[in-house]
Amino acid sequence: MDMRILILGGDGYLGWPTALYLSKNGHDVGVVDNFLRRHYDDEMGVSSLTPIAHLKHRIDVWDAATGLTITPYIGDLVDANFLEETIRDFEPEAIVHFAEQRSAPYSMIDREHAVHTQTNNVVGTLNLLYLIAEIDPSIHLVKLGTMGEYGTPNIDIEEGYIEITHKGRTDVLPFPKQPGSFYHLSKVHDSHNIHFACRTWGLRATDLNQGVVYGQETNETILHPDLMTRFDYDAVFGTVLNRFCVQASIGHPLTVYGTGNQTRGMLDIRDTLQCVELALLNPANEGEMRVYNQFTESFSLNKLASLVKAASHEDIEISHIDDPRVEAEEHYYRAAHTKLLDLGLKPHLLSQSLIESLIETAIEFRDRIDHKAILPTVSWRHTKSKLVTAGKNN
Amino acid sequence: MDMRILILGGDGYLGWPTALYLSKNGHDVGVVDNFLRRHYDDEMGVSSLTPIAHLKHRIDVWDAATGLTITPYIGDLVDANFLEETIRDFEPEAIVHFAEQRSAPYSMIDREHAVHTQTNNVVGTLNLLYLIAEIDPSIHLVKLGTMGEYGTPNIDIEEGYIEITHKGRTDVLPFPKQPGSFYHLSKVHDSHNIHFACRTWGLRATDLNQGVVYGQETNETILHPDLMTRFDYDAVFGTVLNRFCVQASIGHPLTVYGTGNQTRGMLDIRDTLQCVELALLNPANEGEMRVYNQFTESFSLNKLASLVKAASHEDIEISHIDDPRVEAEEHYYRAAHTKLLDLGLKPHLLSQSLIESLIETAIEFRDRIDHKAILPTVSWRHTKSKLVTAGKNN
Repeated sequence: MDMRILILGGDGYLGWPTALYLSKNGHDVGVVDNFLRRHYDDEMGVSSLTPIAHLKHRIDVWDAATGLTITPYIGDLVDANFLEETIRDFEPEAIVHFAEQRSAPYSMIDREHAVHTQTNNVVGTLNLLYLIAEIDPSIHLVKLGTMGEYGTPNIDIEEGYIEITHKGRTDVLPFPKQPGSFYHLSKVHDSHNIHFACRTWGLRATDLNQGVVYGQETNETILHPDLMTRFDYDAVFGTVLNRFCVQASIGHPLTVYGTGNQTRGMLDIRDTLQCVELALLNPANEGEMRVYNQFTESFSLNKLASLVKAASHEDIEISHIDDPRVEAEEHYYRAAHTKLLDLGLKPHLLSQSLIESLIETAIEFRDRIDHKAILPTVSWRHTKSKLVTAGKNN
Repeated sequence: MDMRILILGGDGYLGWPTALYLSKNGHDVGVVDNFLRRHYDDEMGVSSLTPIAHLKHRIDVWDAATGLTITPYIGDLVDANFLEETIRDFEPEAIVHFAEQRSAPYSMIDREHAVHTQTNNVVGTLNLLYLIAEIDPSIHLVKLGTMGEYGTPNIDIEEGYIEITHKGRTDVLPFPKQPGSFYHLSKVHDSHNIHFACRTWGLRATDLNQGVVYGQETNETILHPDLMTRFDYDAVFGTVLNRFCVQASIGHPLTVYGTGNQTRGMLDIRDTLQCVELALLNPANEGEMRVYNQFTESFSLNKLASLVKAASHEDIEISHIDDPRVEAEEHYYRAAHTKLLDLGLKPHLLSQSLIESLIETAIEFRDRIDHKAILPTVSWRHTKSKLVTAGKNN
């Protein structure tokens, strides 16, 4: 059952722990990265709360700790020649694709960042589809999408497709998409391109429409301090629960955007790893683009804030600030997420102890917290947002 | 009622006659073009059947014939600085956007052409959305989409949106898209981006999902030979009825792809002009992306071939060749197209005399016909098609 798996974006928040997890489970793992995520930190003038070792160093540490080898390939998916050489060299049976600009606020900074996000993500994935078709169409592509592709329709969200009966006829069609940022749009574009490549060239793909991930430690990253993954808390790249925990650790009010009734699917970082491996071990059929909704529970922002407040053991204020996004603050939200459970996913549901451990991590690294990075700087309503953090913190 | 209208892609097959039509009807017209369409001819080694005068010359001819001025702007939408200067200089009330790579086979030649098509189309439109939002959000964007965005679902196609009742709840959502080439995909990407910009920034847009256009003469282009628009018959840029008429004019069998039961919405070039003006005169509301299905009749390939055979007055053979595309050859097809009729569209339905006039045009210019350009060279099933015409005809 062990596979040769190439992980694109293997230096990132999720790509790195996924590489360790699959390596530990006996797979032969290669990672591809161009360090664009580290570059975004430099551009924004922010850093992961946790210090992140360089890729080659942490690969060495992993080898020393476990005797397992991870093969690095340094380059950019937009460079088709590099990607072709990498795939021909590693000869993967499956490719896990995390290698995209993944921040909604980043994509909404201004025109240049929107164009960068869409061209980087769409062209990288197009190159990948062509190269899989040309080199080995049997390679299973496991692609990270997002639950944000669906938006917040007033009907139940299904897993990728929906049966529609209309004027007496019935078909199963792609679920209609109403994404909420140029980043989320880039994932919708990818999904359409991948679906077409599967239909036209017989490729096999799994699109994992992932919810908002929280957490920072996995069974593998805790083996050595230099194996830690990112913990982003800033307003541009931080996800909401991580950000609330950092706020709690410094006595900062928990800043809820708008009414706080916005509800989203979420999951523990350890469940991301499980889900990716389950998809790999049960590949899509030839010509099929499967879609799995990859989350375990839904929470409103208000619910998350109250959970963090309860776990913090301090008298933390919850503060509602103007929503920098254009989004429905009151909406119906019910999304199917049974397919990964059917494959055997055992969820880590959100517990008070997990939140406590995140707050402890934040306290451990509190001297690395940049207070100016916490509040939103990117407004959906403006086409040119001023970034207060960039270039002003050092 | 006269408006200041900027036409992007105003040197092309439809952009040029649209510019003349709107100019004749009293509007103040500017045209933007980077001559990429002429460049594609050079790249493919083919030409329009009809000789096409240079843009500045035909603008002068139009002025001499009518006393009307059309203002040219030469540059590329992907160059945001150029586009910004153009919009600020012309101060349009509406922008008609034809300026995209519009050939499905061209987008399917190979990876480079797929990437070019998607980046050129998506980035040009993204730049346009940002600049409208920044310069004047009241500008009405009339964007050319395509009926090919929908693919061939097994239910009736509606105009952009569909009311879905699912598990006891109801919403009106974007119609699910299953486009059939990287070109058609680029239009789907545009539609999603435009919809988001309308929701987020309050822009007003009309997406004209156009069928396959046929015909070559309009009331304006016939005023002088140098005002003629393109007549593309080659397998990469030619549309099907034009191609059949050229084949009939030289006694070439009419080459039907596959079984020939593929059915598509079609319209006369003169109806394109009417539809665009109707959309302009009845603009979308603030925050609204309207979608109109812009075609007047549906035909199967077999029906078109039999109509051309009947009009040709010669004993023309109809020949079925392997379908170079991956598409359903037998499918349900019924698409709504009432909204433009409701605005006042008076269709020119396909007549024998129109087909005869196309064949006459083909006979008039038969010494310009490149026989090697007629048969398909681009296969959907291959990721690297060899173009037999390119570089071998001169």
